[in-house]
Amino acid sequence: MKRKGPWKVMGTRVVYKNPWIAVHEDRVIQPDGKKSIYGTVDFKSGSTIVALDKKGRVLLAYEYRYGGSRYSYECVSGGREKGETFLAAAKRELAEEAGLIAKYWKPFGCVELPTSIMNFQEYLFLARDFTKTKKSHEGTEVIRLRWVPLAKAYQMVCDGTITHAGTIVLILRVRELLQKKVR
Amino acid sequence: MKRKGPWKVMGTRVVYKNPWIAVHEDRVIQPDGKKSIYGTVDFKSGSTIVALDKKGRVLLAYEYRYGGSRYSYECVSGGREKGETFLAAAKRELAEEAGLIAKYWKPFGCVELPTSIMNFQEYLFLARDFTKTKKSHEGTEVIRLRWVPLAKAYQMVCDGTITHAGTIVLILRVRELLQKKVR
Repeated sequence: MKRKGPWKVMGTRVVYKNPWIAVHEDRVIQPDGKKSIYGTVDFKSGSTIVALDKKGRVLLAYEYRYGGSRYSYECVSGGREKGETFLAAAKRELAEEAGLIAKYWKPFGCVELPTSIMNFQEYLFLARDFTKTKKSHEGTEVIRLRWVPLAKAYQMVCDGTITHAGTIVLILRVRELLQKKVR
Repeated sequence: MKRKGPWKVMGTRVVYKNPWIAVHEDRVIQPDGKKSIYGTVDFKSGSTIVALDKKGRVLLAYEYRYGGSRYSYECVSGGREKGETFLAAAKRELAEEAGLIAKYWKPFGCVELPTSIMNFQEYLFLARDFTKTKKSHEGTEVIRLRWVPLAKAYQMVCDGTITHAGTIVLILRVRELLQKKVR
């Protein structure tokens, strides 16, 4: 028997696994003493990068997101490979997807969702001061990139066009950062 | 054969299901023409509520989050029941978990994560002007509530204490809102 906070875990089994996700079902005793099951999903954690250019524009990718069955505007992101730091993953993804190498990097912590069932962290970074390199897309990726003025990206957060959590947090944090500098 | 953006879906099957999540595995043809599989997770969408009192404090819940195997500071949140609107779910959750009925409600859109595999939306709300009601916790919930000054909650976002995406977005948005009013 293992404890997880106020839960007791009597047993666990992998009910589904593929190269990207693993789903576990635990037999648990709830905080109130009742028996139940708990299903959780492990997903490869990764990095999301807001690239900000000298004109104050941010780089948004327009990509089909299979989970939600729709296209979505999001900052460049991708999973961390084995042995990589989240910063190294961020640098690799920005080079592969956008063909950019950045001199300046600033971390903005990580976001998680939905925390009740997912074991997944997305680390956030701001990247600036670019030189160009060759892109190398994966066969699963069809990405349209667009430099968008920060004020326009903020508008897209406010009007609900952007719903990707990591992207929203990055746009709000970068906006704060630039406003502080102006004052 | 069904199309999902640049993907072709040749077939789908439920590989795991419990009362909370459903996991599908699709047989797909990737955008580059290669055959593969794609696993997705359906999870009940819900609402997250930042309660803001007259002293400028926000209500944070300290709760064990089973997915990430750790305790987490988050705004009050919960799944939407069948037939409910997200606002109705927000009102019900705030009453059940915090014993609060709010007169003032403001929506702040929704957040999603991770969009590549999850079909899940979390709708965000600000609630103000409270009267009290009786709490009614579920047997799965052990929640410690704490009113925290907004500046302190913002500090908890900046130092990485808060990682729950919906909570971070709400704290940043409420901070913006109050700063606009002061000016």
